[in-house]
Amino acid sequence: MSNTSGQPTLFDAAASDDTMADEKPKAAKSRSGGGGGGAVNAESMAKKQREISVSEFFTKNRHLLGFDSPRKALLTAVKEAVDNSLDACEEARILPDIRVTIARIGNSEKQFTMTVEDNGPGIVKAQVPNVFGRLLYGSKFHRLRQSRGQQGIGISAAGMYGQLTTGAPVRVRSKPGKKSVPLEFSIRIDTAKNRPEATDKVIDWEGKDHGTEVSIDMEGEYRRGQRSVEEFLKLMAVANPHVQLTFTDPDGNVTTYERGTRELPKEVEEIKPHPHGVELGILLKMIQESDNRTVSAFLQQDFSRVGPTVAKEICEQAGIRPESNPRRLDNTAVQKLKAAIDATKIMAPPLSCIAPIGEDLIIAGLKKEVDADFYVATSRKPVVYRGHPFAIEVGIAYGKPGDTLAVTEGGKIVEVAKKKSSDEVLMGAADEPIKLIRFANRVPLVFQQSACAISKAVINTNWKNYGLQQPRGALPIGPMVVFVHIASVWVPFTSESKEAIASYDEILEELRLALMEAGRKLGIHVRKGRKLASEFKKRNYITMYIPHVVEALKDILDLDDKTVAKATENLTTVLEKSRKL
Amino acid sequence: MSNTSGQPTLFDAAASDDTMADEKPKAAKSRSGGGGGGAVNAESMAKKQREISVSEFFTKNRHLLGFDSPRKALLTAVKEAVDNSLDACEEARILPDIRVTIARIGNSEKQFTMTVEDNGPGIVKAQVPNVFGRLLYGSKFHRLRQSRGQQGIGISAAGMYGQLTTGAPVRVRSKPGKKSVPLEFSIRIDTAKNRPEATDKVIDWEGKDHGTEVSIDMEGEYRRGQRSVEEFLKLMAVANPHVQLTFTDPDGNVTTYERGTRELPKEVEEIKPHPHGVELGILLKMIQESDNRTVSAFLQQDFSRVGPTVAKEICEQAGIRPESNPRRLDNTAVQKLKAAIDATKIMAPPLSCIAPIGEDLIIAGLKKEVDADFYVATSRKPVVYRGHPFAIEVGIAYGKPGDTLAVTEGGKIVEVAKKKSSDEVLMGAADEPIKLIRFANRVPLVFQQSACAISKAVINTNWKNYGLQQPRGALPIGPMVVFVHIASVWVPFTSESKEAIASYDEILEELRLALMEAGRKLGIHVRKGRKLASEFKKRNYITMYIPHVVEALKDILDLDDKTVAKATENLTTVLEKSRKL
Repeated sequence: MSNTSGQPTLFDAAASDDTMADEKPKAAKSRSGGGGGGAVNAESMAKKQREISVSEFFTKNRHLLGFDSPRKALLTAVKEAVDNSLDACEEARILPDIRVTIARIGNSEKQFTMTVEDNGPGIVKAQVPNVFGRLLYGSKFHRLRQSRGQQGIGISAAGMYGQLTTGAPVRVRSKPGKKSVPLEFSIRIDTAKNRPEATDKVIDWEGKDHGTEVSIDMEGEYRRGQRSVEEFLKLMAVANPHVQLTFTDPDGNVTTYERGTRELPKEVEEIKPHPHGVELGILLKMIQESDNRTVSAFLQQDFSRVGPTVAKEICEQAGIRPESNPRRLDNTAVQKLKAAIDATKIMAPPLSCIAPIGEDLIIAGLKKEVDADFYVATSRKPVVYRGHPFAIEVGIAYGKPGDTLAVTEGGKIVEVAKKKSSDEVLMGAADEPIKLIRFANRVPLVFQQSACAISKAVINTNWKNYGLQQPRGALPIGPMVVFVHIASVWVPFTSESKEAIASYDEILEELRLALMEAGRKLGIHVRKGRKLASEFKKRNYITMYIPHVVEALKDILDLDDKTVAKATENLTTVLEKSRKL
Repeated sequence: MSNTSGQPTLFDAAASDDTMADEKPKAAKSRSGGGGGGAVNAESMAKKQREISVSEFFTKNRHLLGFDSPRKALLTAVKEAVDNSLDACEEARILPDIRVTIARIGNSEKQFTMTVEDNGPGIVKAQVPNVFGRLLYGSKFHRLRQSRGQQGIGISAAGMYGQLTTGAPVRVRSKPGKKSVPLEFSIRIDTAKNRPEATDKVIDWEGKDHGTEVSIDMEGEYRRGQRSVEEFLKLMAVANPHVQLTFTDPDGNVTTYERGTRELPKEVEEIKPHPHGVELGILLKMIQESDNRTVSAFLQQDFSRVGPTVAKEICEQAGIRPESNPRRLDNTAVQKLKAAIDATKIMAPPLSCIAPIGEDLIIAGLKKEVDADFYVATSRKPVVYRGHPFAIEVGIAYGKPGDTLAVTEGGKIVEVAKKKSSDEVLMGAADEPIKLIRFANRVPLVFQQSACAISKAVINTNWKNYGLQQPRGALPIGPMVVFVHIASVWVPFTSESKEAIASYDEILEELRLALMEAGRKLGIHVRKGRKLASEFKKRNYITMYIPHVVEALKDILDLDDKTVAKATENLTTVLEKSRKL
């Protein structure tokens, strides 16, 4: 709360009369340290009151944007750039082909160049500087449609961090189409003004007809494993099977995440606000900005799901003439209108604004990157919160291959195998907590798991009902990956770094239902698996003991080896038959 | 990441050649819902790219500011207003006298008027609209000195929330001094521009020579108990014993938190940045903005703790002539300068910029509001992080009165009492988790406890060493209040709502040391307390059995009552003496 320390501007003799003997103003001294100088008076204080640019604010509080540690900064920058590329490709209906490269600057272990290249539609010359060199600038914030980005902060924040730590500008290469001229831009952010300073030049461009490439030099720390760039890209591939991803690490190792489907996510439509999601202040603002000259027209034109009948009903409720001019309504009248809207039954908003992944593609994505026995998914029907549709989806990959399968030799089961899963990053061991992977609008959330509504919902689910162990207030135990996705026109994140989802009751409830639905399907499999496993053990014993039994018979009945073999075989068959599987 | 969805601006025929048969652009349809209209083309996309005002951003993401639920909103607004008043009073060296009132609007249970009134220096007319009607505006952000506010967001955000939920403007009454004219302002925020729209008029003003009063109508929910306005004010009183606080709740009940000391917190001085806390980007910016024409002067004038010798040393290290013009340095040279600064030993920054509470006042504060047996406090010497000094302080109030004290009747101990503590809000029962109270720059942090570095540090402390039970990974158990305070020129909060502190290693380490120090002092007391308690029990037995012993003697030796009484007395004395306490 910064604002009022400028108060003593008119602070005069009278005021200091109040000050206690033991608090003589040491103004002069107290200000000597900083710019101010002199005693507390109008001039000195007035000088101190000033605007704070949003860039200055986020430079000082850059941990709010996910740039608090060199290691995290590298991942956050990659995330923001990849989100951008995918949003652009999908809006232009292009199957995304993304290349991510992280290279050391010189041989430094502390400075890297992060480059993300796409085959997207490219960016028009006039837009490039603002898009990469200005915070709170973009096209998604004001539109009600699902997209990865929603704030207009991310990529410019990454550039700002690069500039802060290396002094280098952001470099952007873009070709907005086959016939257009490819340009390279060098962009700095004037943080005091939150405005870009850019230069550009024409460049040679091979290959692709169109696309964008952004390069940022930044302080960083490159590591593998948990919460690494690799893991992020792997998870990205799970939730975006339509994407072809290539990653080159600082040692030149190339990892490719192959496209799993050529089907683009359903194209999302932009919708108008739903009346039930609108607050009084917003309603007042909409009325001021509306071109419509009657309340009825305003309601029908500026909102979704309001036809003539509903408009009439609302006006009657509010005691307002439908043909009256909305701008003429005073605060009280608008309050009545708001109350009438809330009291009127209105059809839920169109769901065309969101594009859930769907059960089949969730399973396809999991199969592509997680090596398991059993896959199941649940995609809930979208619901509406504050007039914003959202949908919860859950996927489960359970059991390492072989965990509950028998290994046989010549038809005989020799053991219940414990083959090690090929997957290192995602699937934990049978006695470890499950691996929870969280997604919002198809973007993996890799940090702040404990602060996230998704984690709370998973922990609050009783997994014992589905045959898993679960310590109190903790994730369940077992060889399992749980995938949770929220698709929405507006995801309420706990901070600008978009790492965790705020715990709104409506969201927690949908999460609960989705997890229960998937859990039930899992439970059936887990129990069957258990039965099988013990079944196999029993069989094992049979095959183990029969030879001895037969040996005994052989001695007693004095049989020849051929007969013994035959007897063994028959005996086995009989015993197998006599037990139903 | 909003920015690049504006990319298809030059998106031409060539690009759509790439699109797959199964993804025919459904542009027309896909835009039908929203404002856009028509197909994806330069015009439609260009229209969509626009600036997002910081007010629009925080209106949509108001949970980032602590306005996510009606109940929390009421508390957050009070917090921001009280923080403002205290900062202003202390800067003007006035002993604060604050009145907080929450009143229902009409008989509504959903709409309230929050009013905070102070005896501070008042606000000059020209400043009022910006201070209350504009986000990211203030005097504290750019100054390196401890204050409650640091962002320039809080009170204007509260006003914005009020306007959003009730449509009403913020009302401010202010008198900046005995001789000045008292004014009342009515302030609205134009969220699209993040600018105030204000009107003002002269008013009658009784009593105080100077002060400020802010009133905000808002949607809210009033509750008592945990995380209530009462609890917040009670905690505020603990950390600010110099403040006189009066609270009037919606039912007209008045609670007063009496001032515990007339001693104002030490006046904090503004310091210049310390060289070791400055990043390359900031250094470049400082050079551009500096009036100094030589590198040596720049280093000495624009930083703290740099004298001629240190300046010379840095320049030599960097291979830069001390008299060269800083603005002439290229990026590489500045990088060298930065490296030289980091490599040079420089005295720690002056600590006059922060004002820890101090052990005595922490204990005074705890005694004032928490009813306990034993109080202890530890105030660590300030340390420096990123050039910013900060200090950690811990206070402990242990044991409900009587928990380990004997109740006596006529000199005889009749029981080890279990008197219920008078304190309802703060102290838990003996078998409940301890109550942790967190403070940053004397402001109580009441939300997001689990996400806070302070909580992590308390949980990671091994309280068993100090005689308390502690479940794994949880708060210890016992009748105890743990007070933790961080005083700093810049507190890294996890969000703009300033509810939890980010887990920087340097801060966690200082917390650990402070908690251990206080814990040791506690341990001694807890063990002594245990010994006492059992001691009292033993005594009890003596006083219980002696009469019977004497009765027996009486029968055997046939004594008269007087002798019996004397014998009892002697026997007791002997037995007491024979055992050392």
